[in-house]
Amino acid sequence: MNQNIVTLLSDFGRQDVYVGAMKGAIASINPHLNLIDLTHEIPPQNLQAASFALQNAYPYFPPGTVHLAVVDPGVGSQRRAIAVRLNQGFLVGPDNGIFSGVYGLDQIQAAVELDNPRYWREGKVSSTFHGRDIFAPVAAHLAGSVDLSKLGTAIDDISSLVQLPPLSGTTVEIIDPSGSTLTTGTIQYIDHFGNLISNIPASQVQHQSWRVKVGETIISGGATYSDVPPQKLIALIGSHGWVEIAVNGGSARQQLKIEQVIE
Amino acid sequence: MNQNIVTLLSDFGRQDVYVGAMKGAIASINPHLNLIDLTHEIPPQNLQAASFALQNAYPYFPPGTVHLAVVDPGVGSQRRAIAVRLNQGFLVGPDNGIFSGVYGLDQIQAAVELDNPRYWREGKVSSTFHGRDIFAPVAAHLAGSVDLSKLGTAIDDISSLVQLPPLSGTTVEIIDPSGSTLTTGTIQYIDHFGNLISNIPASQVQHQSWRVKVGETIISGGATYSDVPPQKLIALIGSHGWVEIAVNGGSARQQLKIEQVIE
Amino acid sequence: MNQNIVTLLSDFGRQDVYVGAMKGAIASINPHLNLIDLTHEIPPQNLQAASFALQNAYPYFPPGTVHLAVVDPGVGSQRRAIAVRLNQGFLVGPDNGIFSGVYGLDQIQAAVELDNPRYWREGKVSSTFHGRDIFAPVAAHLAGSVDLSKLGTAIDDISSLVQLPPLSGTTVEIIDPSGSTLTTGTIQYIDHFGNLISNIPASQVQHQSWRVKVGETIISGGATYSDVPPQKLIALIGSHGWVEIAVNGGSARQQLKIEQVIE
Repeated sequence: MNQNIVTLLSDFGRQDVYVGAMKGAIASINPHLNLIDLTHEIPPQNLQAASFALQNAYPYFPPGTVHLAVVDPGVGSQRRAIAVRLNQGFLVGPDNGIFSGVYGLDQIQAAVELDNPRYWREGKVSSTFHGRDIFAPVAAHLAGSVDLSKLGTAIDDISSLVQLPPLSGTTVEIIDPSGSTLTTGTIQYIDHFGNLISNIPASQVQHQSWRVKVGETIISGGATYSDVPPQKLIALIGSHGWVEIAVNGGSARQQLKIEQVIE
Repeated sequence: MNQNIVTLLSDFGRQDVYVGAMKGAIASINPHLNLIDLTHEIPPQNLQAASFALQNAYPYFPPGTVHLAVVDPGVGSQRRAIAVRLNQGFLVGPDNGIFSGVYGLDQIQAAVELDNPRYWREGKVSSTFHGRDIFAPVAAHLAGSVDLSKLGTAIDDISSLVQLPPLSGTTVEIIDPSGSTLTTGTIQYIDHFGNLISNIPASQVQHQSWRVKVGETIISGGATYSDVPPQKLIALIGSHGWVEIAVNGGSARQQLKIEQVIE
Repeated sequence: MNQNIVTLLSDFGRQDVYVGAMKGAIASINPHLNLIDLTHEIPPQNLQAASFALQNAYPYFPPGTVHLAVVDPGVGSQRRAIAVRLNQGFLVGPDNGIFSGVYGLDQIQAAVELDNPRYWREGKVSSTFHGRDIFAPVAAHLAGSVDLSKLGTAIDDISSLVQLPPLSGTTVEIIDPSGSTLTTGTIQYIDHFGNLISNIPASQVQHQSWRVKVGETIISGGATYSDVPPQKLIALIGSHGWVEIAVNGGSARQQLKIEQVIE
């Protein structure tokens, strides 16, 4: 029995039954798959947040996992629908940059444009919900035994896969004890706890005494939240591997009054 | 091994462990079932929203799926507890109109009143949480091999199953180029994206140039969100098959200032 | 095939992919486990709410279920990481009181401190996310065939397991018809519907005419919500077995203006 995993990520929220309908479409093709939600609370149409989320979940899933991601403001337009095979897993969704973060993590082996309706939902395909009618069925087939090459036309030029533009947002600097700037980055994501996650990787702050500057605030680097007293700011390497600004027992977003919506 | 599907829908929210307790009750009877959440964020006690949600998920699940739905303001009163067998699936929940939408989609083969405590949770049944103590165990048995007729007394008069009253709410009109009204309906649901979903089916707007009127606003019909510029209103056939009013990249609810709570 | 159940409870919310990463870590060790979310919407770092939630879900799961609970303000500090075997199930998480409620329900058979890295995630363990790197892998091994004793050093003094301090909050009194106080307790949890759940067990109000006093308000005891007219207050034994204050079709929290955050 095939017990492959399909993860699901979207901006559909949990109030409506859009996610439920996608899971029904998958289960109608293969009821034995193990469906795991990554999140469905990506802010509506926010591809930067979706890419970040997928990038930070991807490394923890076993080989062969199919990642179905649907944040799709261009549904029904000319944007391509794609499936991609990487070393460690598969991606299924719109070619709009949602997979940018994962492309940087793993080696792309092959990509196809999903233009073979044999692997779509039977009957009429809607023009507004390809998640249910195209992507979910394709993910179910891929997690079964269908080969990627059958799902559509090969995309020979891998560099044509859409990448998101660079982030614009609050600047974060890594500074040395004298106050000189060592590295500059951007806040790329703010999580549920109000932790501010930069796009500066851990490798930039190894083996040195380091501090972080955001606006006029300078924050000492540490190892874990409880290295500082309650309600105090700390900079550390987050569990995702990025430099993160946090407050022990509180919210850095609130304390630093970061209003930014990251897009 | 039985891998039948049980879907779950409720107004319990996700903050508390009511949904978790229902799933535990199911798994205690049959740990092999495939449990799929439709939504647990139905506005408290809102049967119209629950009926709409179930109606729009039901068609996407495979034959034999058991749909467990618990929005139950009358729990502990005289309202009946029921299970229903349709052509394509089963329904388990209170007889309060929550299944109205599905009754209109599929043929009812049989219905029973759940009055056989042998298929309830062992021990004391609470008077406030039949979801955990009656409906979840019954759904687990039904998704296993227990026949509907064993679960309780047959309901011979199918027409006695409770239907919801007609919707009262914001009026939506389909108009022709001259401004004459072709069809009148009501907004029946507002989704997470702020899309306004009417109760006018796609069949009413086939093969004609059509527009929609809501209050004093007239909106052109199209095929998909991106048929209009960003932030512009469009009317289209939503993925559920109803006439829907949307904004490309935005919220029709906000733009049209619809405050309506649909009940 | 092993189809044991692992439940998950945390304060991670559903917006980020922290829960998804934990599930990936579990599935990477054993893709056949049945993963059931209790809730991930515990208010951040609120151990009283986490303990209450776990206590009220635990009894409904089958023997052998592994309960993974991660509300962990002290992650990276000296707090112990533990696994506990009870009569009916297993607990995995930080030794910070999160399991207080369950300890009172069932008999503890054995406990270990999780200090054997062989059962953690391969590679580097972060100092901020033991949920993903230690607790999830341990839960996956435990739900497989690994014996508790292999996971770490035995904790011989069971009484050293951390218990939460008593609740401080809004007082609730059970009074007799003359107005004399029979029992005094505290509101321990407020649910999604605005029901106020006390820490007074059902056994305290058996076989007597009873009323509840909260502040200056006196509320009659009943059996179910619909025993009073819509929008009226009622006291009853909730489905969890505690004295609960509710409003038929409404929110007791709002009607009694309880602002309390329970911690």
